[in-house]
Amino acid sequence: MEIDYSNIKVIGFDADDTLWVNETYFRDAELEFAKLLAPYETANKIDQELFKRQIENLPLYGYGIKGFILSMVEIAIELSNNTISNTTIEAILNVGKDMLNKPVELLEGVEKVLTTLADDYRLIVVTKGDLLDQERKLEKSGLMDYFHHIEVVSDKKEANYSKLLNHLDIKPSEFLMIGNSLKSDILPLVNIKAHAIHVPFHTTWIHEQVKTSEKEYKNYKTLSSVMEVLPLLKKTPKSKV
Amino acid sequence: MEIDYSNIKVIGFDADDTLWVNETYFRDAELEFAKLLAPYETANKIDQELFKRQIENLPLYGYGIKGFILSMVEIAIELSNNTISNTTIEAILNVGKDMLNKPVELLEGVEKVLTTLADDYRLIVVTKGDLLDQERKLEKSGLMDYFHHIEVVSDKKEANYSKLLNHLDIKPSEFLMIGNSLKSDILPLVNIKAHAIHVPFHTTWIHEQVKTSEKEYKNYKTLSSVMEVLPLLKKTPKSKV
Repeated sequence: MEIDYSNIKVIGFDADDTLWVNETYFRDAELEFAKLLAPYETANKIDQELFKRQIENLPLYGYGIKGFILSMVEIAIELSNNTISNTTIEAILNVGKDMLNKPVELLEGVEKVLTTLADDYRLIVVTKGDLLDQERKLEKSGLMDYFHHIEVVSDKKEANYSKLLNHLDIKPSEFLMIGNSLKSDILPLVNIKAHAIHVPFHTTWIHEQVKTSEKEYKNYKTLSSVMEVLPLLKKTPKSKV
Repeated sequence: MEIDYSNIKVIGFDADDTLWVNETYFRDAELEFAKLLAPYETANKIDQELFKRQIENLPLYGYGIKGFILSMVEIAIELSNNTISNTTIEAILNVGKDMLNKPVELLEGVEKVLTTLADDYRLIVVTKGDLLDQERKLEKSGLMDYFHHIEVVSDKKEANYSKLLNHLDIKPSEFLMIGNSLKSDILPLVNIKAHAIHVPFHTTWIHEQVKTSEKEYKNYKTLSSVMEVLPLLKKTPKSKV
């Protein structure tokens, strides 16, 4: 069955790994962290413990780089049995600061897509990172003017999206979400009968991965590049008569 | 001149120290931090250095508890000349976690005010803390149902409020902000010709304090309790005829 996109009024774009590179920077930071802790543990164990601690801390710290830094400090102290040096802790804090200062690297085709769709739809950014960090990236990206506003949500579950639609005063059928995470950007939308288009990024954080069973029989499209949304969404130019 | 509140459609409430106690918890955390660093410096010096570092880190970390924790760790390492123990760093991380887990203590009259105004206005929360932390507090507060939604802004300057009004699709004269910080909740609103009512809290973070010259000749009211907004804003019940 062809999906009917003709009612859509607002398009929400995920930010990290949909508009610009992000997960790669986390992977790089994890590699640096593992190097700093190499005297105490294997890279594999360090990775596992850091991941576990991030998940444990999520309810308290939420998503984003600051919580990631705090989790790294905790794990460094624990895996070193309270012997990690102040210098290494400072180095860990700097790994975090470097992440916050990273340049914004747009994904291919993003600007073309936004220029084209901005005429026909209200475009917004929907992200669950730190607000300040996301605003900073949006500013650096030069994409600010394409978006009506940025919605930072504390999580991307059905309830968060329902609240968002309520806040936007639109029906689910009038909203399309475009993003790289099946778990966060796609399935919750499909479940509340809104539209979703999946554009995978080459790296996905394990916390965002979903089991195959959850993916089946779902009413959304998967595209290999964001450019491919254009033939689906571009409206025919109005006749000049 | 009497201020005319009759056009107001949306009322924004600041959260911390307007709806519930917050600054007190930061002051308590600073006292604990000074105790932990007592072997290295005087409480006064520790306070000063922590404040300076928070301001320096604001552009990177933004407002909220996580940035505060990270600044404490940095200062602990520096003031101890790289000799602070892992145990003390863990204690500092726990001071932060305790702050995030604090119960929510509503300020007097808040619930009465919200119940009364919710009939006549769209109420929103406008805050610059961490989104997750603010949502958690709103949930714990039991006040969620009074608010249409929560707006977390990265800062509370004129540009942020102008963007907010644009996003809400209302004119400045249709918006009233109620809050405890002259600098963040009042003056920027007055400058963009929106309404603002100042309800001071007994403690103000030094970063939020403004010089007297900035306060003069400004078109806003200062009340000693949030309860006093009711006679100004309560609409006369519609006649039943």
